[in-house]
Amino acid sequence: METIWQNVYAARARSMSSSVIRELLKLTEQPDFISFAGGLPAPEVFPVDQVRAAAERVLTERGAQALQYSTTEGYRPLRELIASWMRDDPRHRLPVCGVDNILITSGSQQALDLIGRMFIDPGDRILVESPTYLGALQAWSAYGPQYVTVPSDDAGMVVDALEPALRAKPKFIYLVPNFNNPTGRTLSLERRRRLIEIASRHGVPIVEDDPYGQLRFEGEMLPSLLSLAAGRGPVNTAYHGNVIYLSSFSKILAPGFRLAWVCAEPEVVATLTRGKQGADLHTSTLSQTIACEVAKDGFIARHLEAIRRTYRERRNVMLAAMQQHFPASVRWNRPEGGMFLWCELAEGVDATERLRAAVPKKVAFVPGASFHPCGGGENTLRLNFSNAAPEQIREGIARLGEVLE
Amino acid sequence: METIWQNVYAARARSMSSSVIRELLKLTEQPDFISFAGGLPAPEVFPVDQVRAAAERVLTERGAQALQYSTTEGYRPLRELIASWMRDDPRHRLPVCGVDNILITSGSQQALDLIGRMFIDPGDRILVESPTYLGALQAWSAYGPQYVTVPSDDAGMVVDALEPALRAKPKFIYLVPNFNNPTGRTLSLERRRRLIEIASRHGVPIVEDDPYGQLRFEGEMLPSLLSLAAGRGPVNTAYHGNVIYLSSFSKILAPGFRLAWVCAEPEVVATLTRGKQGADLHTSTLSQTIACEVAKDGFIARHLEAIRRTYRERRNVMLAAMQQHFPASVRWNRPEGGMFLWCELAEGVDATERLRAAVPKKVAFVPGASFHPCGGGENTLRLNFSNAAPEQIREGIARLGEVLE
Repeated sequence: METIWQNVYAARARSMSSSVIRELLKLTEQPDFISFAGGLPAPEVFPVDQVRAAAERVLTERGAQALQYSTTEGYRPLRELIASWMRDDPRHRLPVCGVDNILITSGSQQALDLIGRMFIDPGDRILVESPTYLGALQAWSAYGPQYVTVPSDDAGMVVDALEPALRAKPKFIYLVPNFNNPTGRTLSLERRRRLIEIASRHGVPIVEDDPYGQLRFEGEMLPSLLSLAAGRGPVNTAYHGNVIYLSSFSKILAPGFRLAWVCAEPEVVATLTRGKQGADLHTSTLSQTIACEVAKDGFIARHLEAIRRTYRERRNVMLAAMQQHFPASVRWNRPEGGMFLWCELAEGVDATERLRAAVPKKVAFVPGASFHPCGGGENTLRLNFSNAAPEQIREGIARLGEVLE
Repeated sequence: METIWQNVYAARARSMSSSVIRELLKLTEQPDFISFAGGLPAPEVFPVDQVRAAAERVLTERGAQALQYSTTEGYRPLRELIASWMRDDPRHRLPVCGVDNILITSGSQQALDLIGRMFIDPGDRILVESPTYLGALQAWSAYGPQYVTVPSDDAGMVVDALEPALRAKPKFIYLVPNFNNPTGRTLSLERRRRLIEIASRHGVPIVEDDPYGQLRFEGEMLPSLLSLAAGRGPVNTAYHGNVIYLSSFSKILAPGFRLAWVCAEPEVVATLTRGKQGADLHTSTLSQTIACEVAKDGFIARHLEAIRRTYRERRNVMLAAMQQHFPASVRWNRPEGGMFLWCELAEGVDATERLRAAVPKKVAFVPGASFHPCGGGENTLRLNFSNAAPEQIREGIARLGEVLE
């Protein structure tokens, strides 16, 4: 039917269509469906009792504050707590970091959107890994960038391919260095050092998206790009450097808070704050005050042990089931943390077509092509191992084995 | 100092600068300051105990759900509750309205942003009242529109001036018909009918921003533009019409939830949902589930009585104090609801300059010029009467009287 609305949409609205895959994945809501397609944490490890107790304390002790408007930058005690994490966490060990370095956002998705809003002019080139995180591409599609891609292998972004790609003069380099979504890959220490050196030499800033860094359940932790880029600033109470670092409460506490943060130079934080003013004024005060109450006194560090234990077990169960049920032509990796692993089917096999065959068997994954902004990866797929219980993982992988045979 | 960042900002970032007035108003955080500048509800009427009890129930009965990711459209029981309000509220009485008509947003500010994202191409013309709501201008500044203004008087937007303004072919008409921010003015019934007729004849949609409609504490309630524009759609389970209606929990429950909704045709809701996917994925599940638990069983309708009583008293106290302390050259209105009233100083008196004089006396307001996107209104100002207690209102207006003398 013709409606008045068709004529008034912005050009960018037409480029933001819902995908075929999204429509297919809607079917995963059926009963008995086992989905490895989502990116959801295990609900079994949500600290429900601690959140309930924190909500009770916050609403008893400072209810009116928790229910009132807040500042765009975020609830100050939460920003202070995060700044202390950025100083103390051995992955960062920032010599200086203060509230002026921290902006609270409504999930990392909003941080990506604000970066698009404040940095991307139509036609600007953005350098990303291929494959890369789909949410970043979705956030930025509204701002009309062009992507320059650099491939990745088991050690993350192939930094050797970086200098040629920088000739396109991208506005920034975007990557997920730890337990990448979709691949589960981690950027090696040597490549981190070279990436920082090359980016600095070319004067190109880096957006380091790190929702999974704390979910390492084996192997050695690696320093953040943020910490490797730390330089001397005009004031010695704040971080200065050419990295915008994003992290989130979604994987270390619970996604229902919709709570994440940016750590960057004060000037960048101030700029993103101006963007956030127009986007949603500020993030839920209720979410912020309750999360701050839960997170204080080292709770997150203790709670992470339970999350890591659960995810290690689920990864192990999935790897063992794949070994048992997948045909020899399928290859996959063994991530040391995070929530995803990555499969390559035999050359010429189309993962999207395999998804169509999987859905009637009530099992699903995300075809890898969606994560390649400039094409490719048709024979790859992403599996999530965090959300399903071990028994479901075994059953789901057995079903998938039949589909891939 | 030169930084790497200066060179990478988007053009739109430069048009989104922080204002002089914002800087002045930062001073209102001093102790003993009485500010009529904000737009905050009275914290005394936040139903803290009910929210605490609801949080307790939600986290006891369905904690894992409240802490997990949710759908972009919003928590379904909350959308169902709101759809029922839209059918039952005598201001709307929509014959049909279902979940497909409702999108939950992170405050109305986000709804405004999503409308900008999905409807505004650079250079598009948008028709607004003058003065108009500043938050809408802030949200849309990222998308590069041009404004066509129509003046308003005591009966709201001057609809006689609408047809000439429509020659500029605006994408949509934006207005706050009830207890307008900044003016407190309400669009008369006769003008509502004519506005709908003219907009429909010209095929121009309307964005009806209605955060304050429920805060009427005297006079007769008026039908929403949404209800006056309701037409027959292709399905008889959903609203169809050329109005996008926005309302919010911020003024009827508490702003700390950052919770608002859009009611519009299913196609428009689906389009805005695609925009929201990139913007923040979804609104805080915790906020949504707790608000839904508080709001059910008619709590909001009962609670509104307390809010209206409080705001009526505060408006009366402010009007009486203005009568006593303001010079005869100042004129003001008497809103029948909402949170703001509007003053006109003598011709040639500059309200921004008066604000500079007011700040050292520890009292503040917002100069009206900021609300005029195409200039004008230098001798006007906005006063908020909802946030300060009666005693503070008397003292603050007395201080302001000296400044205006």
